[in-house]
Amino acid sequence: MASRLVQTPEIQKLLDRVSGLTVGGGDPRTKQIVRRIVSDLYTTIDEFDITPDEFWGTLGFLQQGAMEFGLIAPGLGFDHFLDIRMDEADKAAGIEGGTPRTIEGPLYVPGAPLAKGFARLDDGTDKGEVLVMHGRVTDQDGQPVAGAIVDVWHANTLGNYSYFDKSQTDYNNRRRIETDAEGKYKFHSIVPSGYAVPPQGTTERLLGSVGRHGNRPAHIHFFVSAPGYRHLTTQINIAGDPFLYDDFAQATREGLIPDVVRHEDAEAIRAEGLNTPFAEIDFGFTLVKARSEAEGELHARPRVPPIA
Amino acid sequence: MASRLVQTPEIQKLLDRVSGLTVGGGDPRTKQIVRRIVSDLYTTIDEFDITPDEFWGTLGFLQQGAMEFGLIAPGLGFDHFLDIRMDEADKAAGIEGGTPRTIEGPLYVPGAPLAKGFARLDDGTDKGEVLVMHGRVTDQDGQPVAGAIVDVWHANTLGNYSYFDKSQTDYNNRRRIETDAEGKYKFHSIVPSGYAVPPQGTTERLLGSVGRHGNRPAHIHFFVSAPGYRHLTTQINIAGDPFLYDDFAQATREGLIPDVVRHEDAEAIRAEGLNTPFAEIDFGFTLVKARSEAEGELHARPRVPPIA
Repeated sequence: MASRLVQTPEIQKLLDRVSGLTVGGGDPRTKQIVRRIVSDLYTTIDEFDITPDEFWGTLGFLQQGAMEFGLIAPGLGFDHFLDIRMDEADKAAGIEGGTPRTIEGPLYVPGAPLAKGFARLDDGTDKGEVLVMHGRVTDQDGQPVAGAIVDVWHANTLGNYSYFDKSQTDYNNRRRIETDAEGKYKFHSIVPSGYAVPPQGTTERLLGSVGRHGNRPAHIHFFVSAPGYRHLTTQINIAGDPFLYDDFAQATREGLIPDVVRHEDAEAIRAEGLNTPFAEIDFGFTLVKARSEAEGELHARPRVPPIA
Repeated sequence: MASRLVQTPEIQKLLDRVSGLTVGGGDPRTKQIVRRIVSDLYTTIDEFDITPDEFWGTLGFLQQGAMEFGLIAPGLGFDHFLDIRMDEADKAAGIEGGTPRTIEGPLYVPGAPLAKGFARLDDGTDKGEVLVMHGRVTDQDGQPVAGAIVDVWHANTLGNYSYFDKSQTDYNNRRRIETDAEGKYKFHSIVPSGYAVPPQGTTERLLGSVGRHGNRPAHIHFFVSAPGYRHLTTQINIAGDPFLYDDFAQATREGLIPDVVRHEDAEAIRAEGLNTPFAEIDFGFTLVKARSEAEGELHARPRVPPIA
């Protein structure tokens, strides 16, 4: 892992200069992180004998692909790696249990309509399979958490998300549902499809260059939060998807693949107020008590603003 | 330099997956390079205990700053590091001498007007100090190289470059000059000023975060090429600039800081066909014989297209 050139005093001094270690001002932690990342990249350039053509080609690629960094990051496993680090930190702090976390992805939109107990997520235009999903939010003792917010978002049957897909209505397949006194939430929607990264985009080109595909299995995203509990970012996968264990974003986790029960009998359909067969998912979320207010909060990242 | 977590089988397998090592297809070299870069970044994240806020903040920063990658790269010394690697490769191949190379920077525009022997570079609107620059292009035996192309570009006295600064005329301070039978080139222009990276831009914010400034000393860029010779990418600096040895792009090199001679006597002014005092720079370029056609060519990188 050593490059003779990078170890020379000339390059060590260059690294000190570019990372601001030879001047006052700035943030000491940032200087150390910049030095480390740049030093690693210099070393990789030297060891792999990366040509100027390759370097500038990559820089141009990143420049063009910047709008897809939110997809390139999960594609390279960064989101999943951050999850594993948080799991490790929890374990080291003696925190166990609760619903497993998994990645947020880049397609959350804040400010979805808030409903009490029940919501219909889809706007009725998507003729996909009807989905009924419900469950309870509880604490680690199995006690209901009333007033928890289940913030849910998912793709349509074409694998597209409202807001990013401008052909959909505002907040289609996006709702916030407040749990009732028994900690229950429920929604009607359509069973989402998986999606692929944009064709010919930089993520697809990057994945293709290493022989990979850019498909995600069908899934439903959740933020679950309640005062006094740790914020949960997670997803469930739709069992049976061909990409279930081959997610380009590496986000599938055991404990997040609930059974899907298909109902075709007239009584069950009537009981739900529906007129077609439907798929049912029963899934409960277990929240962990927060030790600090910060643990209850969603971390910062670039997100789109709420829809005006 | 080791992260226990990154060395676990779980993360090693994740790295294999994200870099496509578990699938066929794709480019084997790219897979190895992607694995190395991602592994180094995971390790840095783990060792510095980088938080999700820091990670996503950096990703958003890079996304917004993508248009400035051409400035961030030299700011972090990558361009200079590539020069040093090419110097080392030359030395290893027994190639010595010739005018030192230095970085191209992101502001070259191809297709500047071609003149024989002499050109005026500026359009007459910039009331800066008049510059007369001339010299000879020779080979390593001191023999003139006739028909060499001296492709020169520089900033105006505000530190701005035509094309990128839309207030300037097309190809202002940009020309290609073909050397005469004695290998001579000459041009009239104005003495350029140094420049700073765009205020409040991502490059300035990055440099500021590590306590650095984004100033370049005044300089003039050159590509010098001729059939049978290695392509030369270089710059000269204007002696006396306060940032001469504190270039944010790390591009100042010994051998590229010619003397500037100021002329105020009427006869010298008349001899140049001028009516004001002027600065004179005499600088010769020494080209090295190419061992292959490829050595005569400018390497690829994202560049703007010629002006229509």
